[in-house]
Amino acid sequence: MESPRPGAQRRRDTEHRLAHDVDLWVASASADGVPHLVPLSFDWDGEALLIATPANSPTGRNLAATRNVRIGLGETRDVSMIEGDVEVLEIDALSQEQGDRFAQRAGFDPRPLTAYRWFRITPRRIQAWREVDELAGRGLMRDGRWLV
Amino acid sequence: MESPRPGAQRRRDTEHRLAHDVDLWVASASADGVPHLVPLSFDWDGEALLIATPANSPTGRNLAATRNVRIGLGETRDVSMIEGDVEVLEIDALSQEQGDRFAQRAGFDPRPLTAYRWFRITPRRIQAWREVDELAGRGLMRDGRWLV
Repeated sequence: MESPRPGAQRRRDTEHRLAHDVDLWVASASADGVPHLVPLSFDWDGEALLIATPANSPTGRNLAATRNVRIGLGETRDVSMIEGDVEVLEIDALSQEQGDRFAQRAGFDPRPLTAYRWFRITPRRIQAWREVDELAGRGLMRDGRWLV
Repeated sequence: MESPRPGAQRRRDTEHRLAHDVDLWVASASADGVPHLVPLSFDWDGEALLIATPANSPTGRNLAATRNVRIGLGETRDVSMIEGDVEVLEIDALSQEQGDRFAQRAGFDPRPLTAYRWFRITPRRIQAWREVDELAGRGLMRDGRWLV
């Protein structure tokens, strides 16, 4: 078993996943406490995550109502958990370059899908751990500021 | 690309994961709509999922308050989503055999941990899909009854 990673390594590993992974797990909740969870594709521009889903899907409705999300990036035993603030954008609101970049990474282009919205997620809190020996020291970002 | 799996195959694949996987993603929500998500180990007894987590963790508090959960089992592109009803049990409430079985499968034994509770989750709704071509036909269980 490897030693627990120092925080700086966990941050690098998280930033690597943000830059290169294709999918993540999006947990949201209705205002009255019904949880939802789906896997979705994403892009990362260095400051925020971008996902696209129908405005009328459970995730779309929850994110618009609460502006709150918790994301699982990675694997169950090598995870980065991200809590963020959600901004909802019309599907034609991004630049051509941003839309192209998402389409290339995600493998689908939501821009022709008028039922879809963009959801731009700015991380507020990030944690990363592999197994129980990494629960200590899992906090990497608080209130939008990296701690490591 | 493989053809979309028929429902009976998706059920078999889901039951295989329930019987053999070790971890899953647990999405819960507070009564006022704050989502939570964590990876946890589990067991399956053929009727219900069993997880263990501290009563005072976000997941423990949410599940006790709402008795509602949405679980992601598998991978982002080969997922079974499970919604279920939650029963909360004291950590000494299971039989020796049930506790041993969980400990062997999960690789940790929560029974000495008095801050922990068991959460027994009876599936109410199950969906399974791999990619977008499997979104149609993803419903496998409704109101606790298999559809396929």
